[in-house]
Amino acid sequence: MEYIGLNELIDRALQEDIGHGDITTESLIPEGMQASGVFVAKSAGILAGINVSRAVFRYLESGITFETFKTDGDTLAAGDVIARVTGKAATLLTGERVALNFLQRLSGIATKTRRMVELIKYLPAELVDTRKTTPGLRVLEKYAVAVGGARNHRFGLYDGVMIKDNHIKAVGSITGAVSAARQKIPHTIKVEVEVENLEQLEEALQARADIILLDNMDIEQMKKAVEITAGRALLEASGGINEDTLAEVAKSGVDFISSGALTHSAVSLDISFNLTETW
Amino acid sequence: MEYIGLNELIDRALQEDIGHGDITTESLIPEGMQASGVFVAKSAGILAGINVSRAVFRYLESGITFETFKTDGDTLAAGDVIARVTGKAATLLTGERVALNFLQRLSGIATKTRRMVELIKYLPAELVDTRKTTPGLRVLEKYAVAVGGARNHRFGLYDGVMIKDNHIKAVGSITGAVSAARQKIPHTIKVEVEVENLEQLEEALQARADIILLDNMDIEQMKKAVEITAGRALLEASGGINEDTLAEVAKSGVDFISSGALTHSAVSLDISFNLTETW
Amino acid sequence: MEYIGLNELIDRALQEDIGHGDITTESLIPEGMQASGVFVAKSAGILAGINVSRAVFRYLESGITFETFKTDGDTLAAGDVIARVTGKAATLLTGERVALNFLQRLSGIATKTRRMVELIKYLPAELVDTRKTTPGLRVLEKYAVAVGGARNHRFGLYDGVMIKDNHIKAVGSITGAVSAARQKIPHTIKVEVEVENLEQLEEALQARADIILLDNMDIEQMKKAVEITAGRALLEASGGINEDTLAEVAKSGVDFISSGALTHSAVSLDISFNLTETW
Amino acid sequence: MEYIGLNELIDRALQEDIGHGDITTESLIPEGMQASGVFVAKSAGILAGINVSRAVFRYLESGITFETFKTDGDTLAAGDVIARVTGKAATLLTGERVALNFLQRLSGIATKTRRMVELIKYLPAELVDTRKTTPGLRVLEKYAVAVGGARNHRFGLYDGVMIKDNHIKAVGSITGAVSAARQKIPHTIKVEVEVENLEQLEEALQARADIILLDNMDIEQMKKAVEITAGRALLEASGGINEDTLAEVAKSGVDFISSGALTHSAVSLDISFNLTETW
Amino acid sequence: MEYIGLNELIDRALQEDIGHGDITTESLIPEGMQASGVFVAKSAGILAGINVSRAVFRYLESGITFETFKTDGDTLAAGDVIARVTGKAATLLTGERVALNFLQRLSGIATKTRRMVELIKYLPAELVDTRKTTPGLRVLEKYAVAVGGARNHRFGLYDGVMIKDNHIKAVGSITGAVSAARQKIPHTIKVEVEVENLEQLEEALQARADIILLDNMDIEQMKKAVEITAGRALLEASGGINEDTLAEVAKSGVDFISSGALTHSAVSLDISFNLTETW
Amino acid sequence: MEYIGLNELIDRALQEDIGHGDITTESLIPEGMQASGVFVAKSAGILAGINVSRAVFRYLESGITFETFKTDGDTLAAGDVIARVTGKAATLLTGERVALNFLQRLSGIATKTRRMVELIKYLPAELVDTRKTTPGLRVLEKYAVAVGGARNHRFGLYDGVMIKDNHIKAVGSITGAVSAARQKIPHTIKVEVEVENLEQLEEALQARADIILLDNMDIEQMKKAVEITAGRALLEASGGINEDTLAEVAKSGVDFISSGALTHSAVSLDISFNLTETW
Repeated sequence: MEYIGLNELIDRALQEDIGHGDITTESLIPEGMQASGVFVAKSAGILAGINVSRAVFRYLESGITFETFKTDGDTLAAGDVIARVTGKAATLLTGERVALNFLQRLSGIATKTRRMVELIKYLPAELVDTRKTTPGLRVLEKYAVAVGGARNHRFGLYDGVMIKDNHIKAVGSITGAVSAARQKIPHTIKVEVEVENLEQLEEALQARADIILLDNMDIEQMKKAVEITAGRALLEASGGINEDTLAEVAKSGVDFISSGALTHSAVSLDISFNLTETW
Repeated sequence: MEYIGLNELIDRALQEDIGHGDITTESLIPEGMQASGVFVAKSAGILAGINVSRAVFRYLESGITFETFKTDGDTLAAGDVIARVTGKAATLLTGERVALNFLQRLSGIATKTRRMVELIKYLPAELVDTRKTTPGLRVLEKYAVAVGGARNHRFGLYDGVMIKDNHIKAVGSITGAVSAARQKIPHTIKVEVEVENLEQLEEALQARADIILLDNMDIEQMKKAVEITAGRALLEASGGINEDTLAEVAKSGVDFISSGALTHSAVSLDISFNLTETW
Repeated sequence: MEYIGLNELIDRALQEDIGHGDITTESLIPEGMQASGVFVAKSAGILAGINVSRAVFRYLESGITFETFKTDGDTLAAGDVIARVTGKAATLLTGERVALNFLQRLSGIATKTRRMVELIKYLPAELVDTRKTTPGLRVLEKYAVAVGGARNHRFGLYDGVMIKDNHIKAVGSITGAVSAARQKIPHTIKVEVEVENLEQLEEALQARADIILLDNMDIEQMKKAVEITAGRALLEASGGINEDTLAEVAKSGVDFISSGALTHSAVSLDISFNLTETW
Repeated sequence: MEYIGLNELIDRALQEDIGHGDITTESLIPEGMQASGVFVAKSAGILAGINVSRAVFRYLESGITFETFKTDGDTLAAGDVIARVTGKAATLLTGERVALNFLQRLSGIATKTRRMVELIKYLPAELVDTRKTTPGLRVLEKYAVAVGGARNHRFGLYDGVMIKDNHIKAVGSITGAVSAARQKIPHTIKVEVEVENLEQLEEALQARADIILLDNMDIEQMKKAVEITAGRALLEASGGINEDTLAEVAKSGVDFISSGALTHSAVSLDISFNLTETW
Repeated sequence: MEYIGLNELIDRALQEDIGHGDITTESLIPEGMQASGVFVAKSAGILAGINVSRAVFRYLESGITFETFKTDGDTLAAGDVIARVTGKAATLLTGERVALNFLQRLSGIATKTRRMVELIKYLPAELVDTRKTTPGLRVLEKYAVAVGGARNHRFGLYDGVMIKDNHIKAVGSITGAVSAARQKIPHTIKVEVEVENLEQLEEALQARADIILLDNMDIEQMKKAVEITAGRALLEASGGINEDTLAEVAKSGVDFISSGALTHSAVSLDISFNLTETW
Repeated sequence: MEYIGLNELIDRALQEDIGHGDITTESLIPEGMQASGVFVAKSAGILAGINVSRAVFRYLESGITFETFKTDGDTLAAGDVIARVTGKAATLLTGERVALNFLQRLSGIATKTRRMVELIKYLPAELVDTRKTTPGLRVLEKYAVAVGGARNHRFGLYDGVMIKDNHIKAVGSITGAVSAARQKIPHTIKVEVEVENLEQLEEALQARADIILLDNMDIEQMKKAVEITAGRALLEASGGINEDTLAEVAKSGVDFISSGALTHSAVSLDISFNLTETW
């Protein structure tokens, strides 16, 4: 992942934490002091964002040494050493919290994603994320979802069409809405429509929607929807699907299952950074 | 809360989501269409960030109407209507996700915080947060912690001194480190030292540290620390304290208990935004 | 068009032109002097960007009066009055050049686009733009293309997949490339492949590409491509198509014709701004 | 040209094109794949902006190899190889369009400028540009004009005084306006006045204007203006001068001829970027 | 003065002072509390920057009331009330220091400038400033110089040519340097050359420099320079001129005297802001 | 000092001075010309900011050679060579003014500070600065104060509490204000109260303020305040203390003396930059 906005994100995160200066480190750590430190997993999970952590330290000290023992997507056991950083002691002490804040959040998302993906790994349905991400971190959080093994849905309002209830009301019908959207958007983008029942599904199919989102349907309805659709559109299930119900939904035959929980309900993975020596 | 950086945060969040345009809404919603919509709690919790949501809509349409029925800190039950927004239909459809992403994250933190605060409400110890926040959102997340009823620890490396193990090693002793820090930092800021055992505690007290952080001590050690300290410094307990152990720690007599979980392990509160009418 | 990045673009354009100050106007125009001025077409064309011009003046003086007599997409004849601005004389004199620079460029693009669209208006093929736009102005220039009556292709590398020769070489085959792309990109985005001959077309169809770009084919090849494809994919013709050859290409039966000339070879439409009175 | 704002311009252009990522290249091109590619002229013209293209690739990959075979100002024939780039295949594929968009626009301006300059090369009059440039690109476009062989007029409202009709009306007379301006502006900057007839010219000469712009005069008037002025001020002809009339105007004896067409009516020079090998 | 970069400057100044929040005011001042306060001169001087102070408060609270009793350029006596601000108590308390920091610095410069201008007010020489300004505040500081009654020299390296010793060495001669510069810079900008003795002066005159800077000459040399020049160029004296020597230099007959001390040696004027009532 | 915002400050300062280009240097200095130059003190003082000057040149030319003969805090005599820079002649000529503007301002502050610190060097009171700094330069100016030997007070409204008269009025009493503030601010920050007489001092002591600012008290009152306080709080004297009165105040026994004059009344130290050779 070489995200062109990464440096700006890191700059902001460091300015937020350091402000006019790290007054503890500036008061106590001698200019020339060098150090090594390691990132260590404190609980099991999936690693994501190690390059972001490297970039944080590089931002503070361009020549720093950053050796990785694990890469994004690797499974971590408690105690695993993930990476070793060697550079100025001040850099390590000043940068560690920001490096960890990124790494723990992204690994937390990858970990949750992997756990859910595992639940449906023998089924054809694919798990996808949503736009329910932390403001400012969407690209990184969606990257973590991909690392965890799920797939990204649209990145924003600009790269996918999702026609919801209110859009339909404004135009008057699903048919009209699909047709109006298709005429105006780039022809490289598919049209997705949200439906709440099987009548709407029929209309969406007639209107030749590319993707149909089955909103809050129960398993029986989903199965019927799959049957009716018969491959004429991609079907995406959505709405309050959790780890308990995921496999059941996947068995209904839908193509995609979208889950906001991958990002809005992930918690940080426990990772620490320990100075190992100074000289 | 009138945070001077708020507009910039909102600008970035909206640019991240909207990019070159909300292609669905632009294709389907007529220019002049007006709408009303409501924020509704879908599970119980504590509200935080309603002003941020208002600011999101105001950013898109300066004259929008935003009525609030709940204010930050209020307890929400599932079904409670939090606020009503009235303005262009396009504004509501384009802005709702970003408004929710802020509101749900901040309310999630306030909810978790309140739950933990309740556990020690009859005890003198105060719960405080940490720097384990989402990069870019620290001020808002710390605001949500305060709304939830806990107290903010330092906001960054610039407004508090925290002398850790590695700082001590660099200087040679707690005594030396406390004294060096005190000479260089603004006299408006206290000196906090992290200690791992009672010998270090004694040294920190001798060095006249203002605050002493008891790192990963067990309850017995904490109690002894309280006894030894006898009010000569503020004591802060830290390290893996969770909802199960919190009350016990509080009973030890420490002044503060810091918990990264308030922010790094909070999940979003379930809140939805529903268009109620368009015209 | 309510482009969220518009204010930033205008700010940059004004800072570029005004710098530390409009030294002529500051030296000569009295503080309280008011004025009216009009935008007048000096040659025939299609208007695009009048809201951008308004936003330029609003940026300098929020309460300015801006009356429009023509709207984007209207046909202009030489001499047509497009809009009247009333405000401080200093605002009008300082802002006019930037307002015109946007308006003339965008109207130039809309004018060229309309001329090309007219050439194929009775044919089903649609004209689309490319990424050959002026750095920094892509969203506005694509807006002008839409005003002119053509359709937008992808806005950037992020909202469409275009598999070119070099991508194919890297993967080894069209089949492999289409399949690899489809597995990784959001399911809301179509896969487009560039082909140079009919064998590649066959492979792309087998691989189930959504869109196939016929690169620099002659009319006969295009016709065969349309026949072979038989509706199984969208066909897009590209490569050196100009006003002389456009209709011929459109008659081949392709669905889309992309032309970089809409943006890279448009020249400004001649529009002037004249102060009509001052008081 | 070492323009201090260049990196910011490139950053914006790349962010505009790449957004959250080049989804085609990220899906298909292996991390370690290297490549070479060349910029090739596809029609004849004058090169301008090759350093900007280099800076675009450097921005994406600091260690990239960029060999140039032509430098800015060189005449290009169709087929000429301009430069060779060697680096990661992903960098070349992701960066080429932005590199070309700059290079083609700037070379287009230099080409048009050179063609006009050639028309008056044996005459003393100098061709100068205007502020009719693309918003955001003024410094680069004026650089391309200089590469083409013409001279730059003022860069903005801040580095030259141009007293127009409306300024004169506001003050009451040319005499008053020239005198007021001269008292307030830095003494390092000349005063230019726009006149429409010979009476105004006389007044401007009396007022000791440094430069007098002859606005939309016919050739006979210009000749008289030259005679009357007799070297007491610099004379600049302006207003609808095109390739047909340029030489005639130059022969009138004016010192400068300003032409907005150099920038507002230039079209991109046809240049392509071809990957030559990958490994 | 309507400086287009002003808001950005104020934003930065406020962010610098307020950071994540004014913790005193937020803790103590009730949301709805209103207040009035006045700016009062505590020593005599010249006012400059009152609009900047207004803009600071407006930035924090757009509807604030700001009445001025003095305007820029007015002479202040100790005790004079300059302006009254009425708005939220929190706005006044949070914004006062930044408002004062601008106002005191700018008024300090205007005061020093006026004092120097007074020393030569009956002489034709004009006092001009230099580029020796505080980084980031040049436009405002040069504005304060103008308010004080002196004139602005060039604003930067971009709007004036100043050929110094080292430039001359690089080219080989004053003659060559003046001629080379004149060929490349916009014809709206004059050429200034720095000379150290009368031989160089002669060469600069031959080369037809527009302005000649007499660097560190004594009064006798300056008088000779004036005599030799005889109006063929503008003469500017520079180099360690202070309040003691200024009048003498002015009497030498030079046209301009430039003094870095106007900005680099001005001290803040003593002005205070007092809350007068709260309700 | 490794201030994370430094590059941004330098970027702004250079853009302010260079704008679209250094037209003198670009016209005259050959691309390949190299040069050396030295910073030389022209009057006695204390050096501060040499790293900022280095960073200015590095910003323009990353590989420049910068040798220092003096470091921040060193005493300079007139004629002392501070540093030598070797790089492109154009870099040196274009960058020197900005490098000097920072260096002279910061050294001016360090010089004034040192002079005041010397006056009380055998007394226990410490001199501290204030928030009366140049907008945009606070971190650098406070750094210069520290280099000069004084101590920094709070950096902004965010890292220290200062309860003034108006805050007290709003709450009703010193006791209430101290208690309210202490409950809300981070426990890492001390509470400072401004008092105007000994009654208020008593109340502040009862309220257990950490620091008490004695505002505009005379020496006798200060002495009594010291006696009454008896170490129960830190005492800070403030208000119109100058070089004449400083020692007297220090002898009163207060712990800190704050002086805005360190920054608002410092003038630039005279330092020049001379090219020594070019090749």
